[in-house]
Amino acid sequence: MQSNTLAELAQHVGGRIVGNPNTVITGAATLENAHSGQITFLSNKKYIPLVKTTQAAAAIVNQEMESSADLLIAEDPYYAFMQIVVFLYGHRKHEPTGISPQANIAPSAHIGQNCHIHPFATISSDATIGNDCILYPGVFIGPRAKLGNDCILYPNAVVYDECILGNRVILQANATVGEDGFGYATYKGVHHKIPQIGRVILEDDVEIGSGSAIERGTLEDTIIGEGTKIGDTVTIGHGTRIGPHCLLVPQAGIAGSATLGHHCVLGGQVGVIGHIKIGNMVRIGAQAGVIGDVPDGKEIVGSPAIDASKARRSYALIEYLPELRRSIKDIERRLRTMEKSES
Amino acid sequence: MQSNTLAELAQHVGGRIVGNPNTVITGAATLENAHSGQITFLSNKKYIPLVKTTQAAAAIVNQEMESSADLLIAEDPYYAFMQIVVFLYGHRKHEPTGISPQANIAPSAHIGQNCHIHPFATISSDATIGNDCILYPGVFIGPRAKLGNDCILYPNAVVYDECILGNRVILQANATVGEDGFGYATYKGVHHKIPQIGRVILEDDVEIGSGSAIERGTLEDTIIGEGTKIGDTVTIGHGTRIGPHCLLVPQAGIAGSATLGHHCVLGGQVGVIGHIKIGNMVRIGAQAGVIGDVPDGKEIVGSPAIDASKARRSYALIEYLPELRRSIKDIERRLRTMEKSES
Amino acid sequence: MQSNTLAELAQHVGGRIVGNPNTVITGAATLENAHSGQITFLSNKKYIPLVKTTQAAAAIVNQEMESSADLLIAEDPYYAFMQIVVFLYGHRKHEPTGISPQANIAPSAHIGQNCHIHPFATISSDATIGNDCILYPGVFIGPRAKLGNDCILYPNAVVYDECILGNRVILQANATVGEDGFGYATYKGVHHKIPQIGRVILEDDVEIGSGSAIERGTLEDTIIGEGTKIGDTVTIGHGTRIGPHCLLVPQAGIAGSATLGHHCVLGGQVGVIGHIKIGNMVRIGAQAGVIGDVPDGKEIVGSPAIDASKARRSYALIEYLPELRRSIKDIERRLRTMEKSES
Repeated sequence: MQSNTLAELAQHVGGRIVGNPNTVITGAATLENAHSGQITFLSNKKYIPLVKTTQAAAAIVNQEMESSADLLIAEDPYYAFMQIVVFLYGHRKHEPTGISPQANIAPSAHIGQNCHIHPFATISSDATIGNDCILYPGVFIGPRAKLGNDCILYPNAVVYDECILGNRVILQANATVGEDGFGYATYKGVHHKIPQIGRVILEDDVEIGSGSAIERGTLEDTIIGEGTKIGDTVTIGHGTRIGPHCLLVPQAGIAGSATLGHHCVLGGQVGVIGHIKIGNMVRIGAQAGVIGDVPDGKEIVGSPAIDASKARRSYALIEYLPELRRSIKDIERRLRTMEKSES
Repeated sequence: MQSNTLAELAQHVGGRIVGNPNTVITGAATLENAHSGQITFLSNKKYIPLVKTTQAAAAIVNQEMESSADLLIAEDPYYAFMQIVVFLYGHRKHEPTGISPQANIAPSAHIGQNCHIHPFATISSDATIGNDCILYPGVFIGPRAKLGNDCILYPNAVVYDECILGNRVILQANATVGEDGFGYATYKGVHHKIPQIGRVILEDDVEIGSGSAIERGTLEDTIIGEGTKIGDTVTIGHGTRIGPHCLLVPQAGIAGSATLGHHCVLGGQVGVIGHIKIGNMVRIGAQAGVIGDVPDGKEIVGSPAIDASKARRSYALIEYLPELRRSIKDIERRLRTMEKSES
Repeated sequence: MQSNTLAELAQHVGGRIVGNPNTVITGAATLENAHSGQITFLSNKKYIPLVKTTQAAAAIVNQEMESSADLLIAEDPYYAFMQIVVFLYGHRKHEPTGISPQANIAPSAHIGQNCHIHPFATISSDATIGNDCILYPGVFIGPRAKLGNDCILYPNAVVYDECILGNRVILQANATVGEDGFGYATYKGVHHKIPQIGRVILEDDVEIGSGSAIERGTLEDTIIGEGTKIGDTVTIGHGTRIGPHCLLVPQAGIAGSATLGHHCVLGGQVGVIGHIKIGNMVRIGAQAGVIGDVPDGKEIVGSPAIDASKARRSYALIEYLPELRRSIKDIERRLRTMEKSES
């Protein structure tokens, strides 16, 4: 971590200062917990009151407002904050290990320049590793798999045979890429394993969370598009294709042969059945169950998932079902009384 | 992958040909993506129109139909297709490594013939490994655990002490078998760990997906029946007994001391509470929450799970709750008007 | 496993005997499966009838009752049973390995006394391991991480850099602690990774299940309070703070920056959104979806989660929605008839 004046940080993110440009910034924190010398940010209007009372030295906001801190005004405060956190702290520094003699590397594997292969990592025969990759202990790269440049695979991440990772792909610890898809032909009550001859392709800048599992395709590849980020303990079924720049929050799951467009956001514990088509920029609320195609731009919620604009109200009414039923019974009683008096 | 004539493939699966028996087949693909030289299949009526337009050289179907490809008619097209995929591609070929000197094998462990134990695998004291087993790097076999013949354990799969795997068991990467059950006695607000003295028994032909975790029993064994297949990131609670030939789709979870019969199918993200009894051939829809016993042959859906025949309609009506409430309010208003006019 | 008389066991747990104090107890089992020589327990009234027929030699109960076995009467039978199971069987005995020369230990790491570091475990630079810790094969301890005394890390558990584990912390196999939080700043459609500079702190007596993943904080630490137990394939988001003595059943998930009080219980597959505050002693039913603050002592159920006292009835009524709608249509029809006859 280094320290800088607010003026230097403003210049770095292209923002302007309301306050003292010479304020020295030594760290970053949240509005609530920041203290003297730290910079914070406001990205949610709900927290505007905290800007007035924060102990931070400076706050990144998108317009002038009452504040107990100097202001750094930026078009997109959260993006500016990200840039400043990178500037002040940098991304994780990996210890240089070179290629450990305790790693198990097949003679036919090809390893690019400036890689760090830790002890107990395995690179199988005919695998290719690009330049500047880091493979932590316990990482397994299967036969004929290919990694691009600048990939980081954390401890015990596994890449099965033939799978392909682009550049700057990150696998968090204990992630699995390319295990067999859940595919069986059931005949006379016995499930026969179908060879899963497709691969997994992770395009550039994909990140996969800890404990997550991306199945290889049965016949065609499972593909995760460029820049898509997948959280922890997510599973993706065989042959599913996810477009670029999606976000899949932890514990989401997508069954096989589904397709998703670009810039979709799936909340936590979302389930998507197989063989359906989800358009571009679709937003799916946490725990939703998606059982049919979804057009571009739609926001859906609930299990089964329906249009968010009506879903929130609809699902909230479940609580009032006993009351609704009582009303119906009451109405029926009154109606019977009236019908009797009429007859 | 090898190539064969359609006649040879038909003979292999016991089907008959409508078209050219000399068509050469070099691969397999889906109806939509197959191209010249490939064989495909139809197992879902929804895709019948694709049979007319597929670019495949041949299609496996269960009766004669209009087609752009030669037809291979088989009683069960998906099963026939599975057989042909195995015939053309085979299952994964594992590189022969023998027993690596970089593996860590206890002197008291017993290893059968023709096993392949990769570097960084551990076999603990008094463990037994059958013949023809493959243990990839990072696999851990605990003390006194037993594996049958022809097991495949992918990288970093873990088998705790005393657990038993039958023949042809497959553990995908990062799967865990036999970790401690979630069992604590809470006394004066403190949770005291109960020793989990049961084991996990995986019978013949069981497969466990990546990231999945099968708890050992507290007092009695957790048992997964013969031929049952479990997907990725599934958890099975301590002492649960699952019958033979079940399918548990990824992210399903079963709490402790439940029992399931044979040939049950649990969809993705299904949750089953503990201490209940689920019969044979029960089908449970994705995301269902099962909170009570389920008789043989039943299909259930929803959270809480109810009979599928009514559940689909019931859950679909949640969307219309605001409308139903409006109707009730409207009725009440009209009723008041009438009651007034009567009095 | 050792054998003892019922009198010795009663003395150990401070209970009293109704029956033969000289009965020899050689093991423990459930009411249903116990046989001669074993001790069992009753903690759920539902199973009182089994006490009359159990084959067990002795049963731990909280009051005198009709029984086929000798009775050991204790205030809290389940807690007494736990004590007896520990007494008879003990906790897992770990094989003494000392510090394996096949482990990879940085020269700058500090390791306490009487530790067992298995082959293929990694301890990175400047990490600190307390006394009497056991690190199984494939365990990874990142740079500057700290473990207290008496920790047990099962195979392939991973602790990232700078994270802190208290005393007696247990990580089951393939658990991950301290991976990067799911944090990105999205700018012009591209997700930019935010360095996650917070840590994970697991306080004393925390246990984490297999396949679970605890994200490190973005700016502030993720904290799991003393004595909290977390099951398998659970994920905890960045910066979330969980109080002491909570139970998180397998497959639960909590998003980032949430806070939970002490003694909360989350059922299986519960989802909690980020940035909310859950009080003390809150109970959340399996599969619930929690989308707002929850006060102390509350029990909630359902997705969306509502008060349990009304939730069970409300959610159960979903099944009757088609019937309710039919009633409303019938009422409307009768009302129209009456309105016509009036006009």
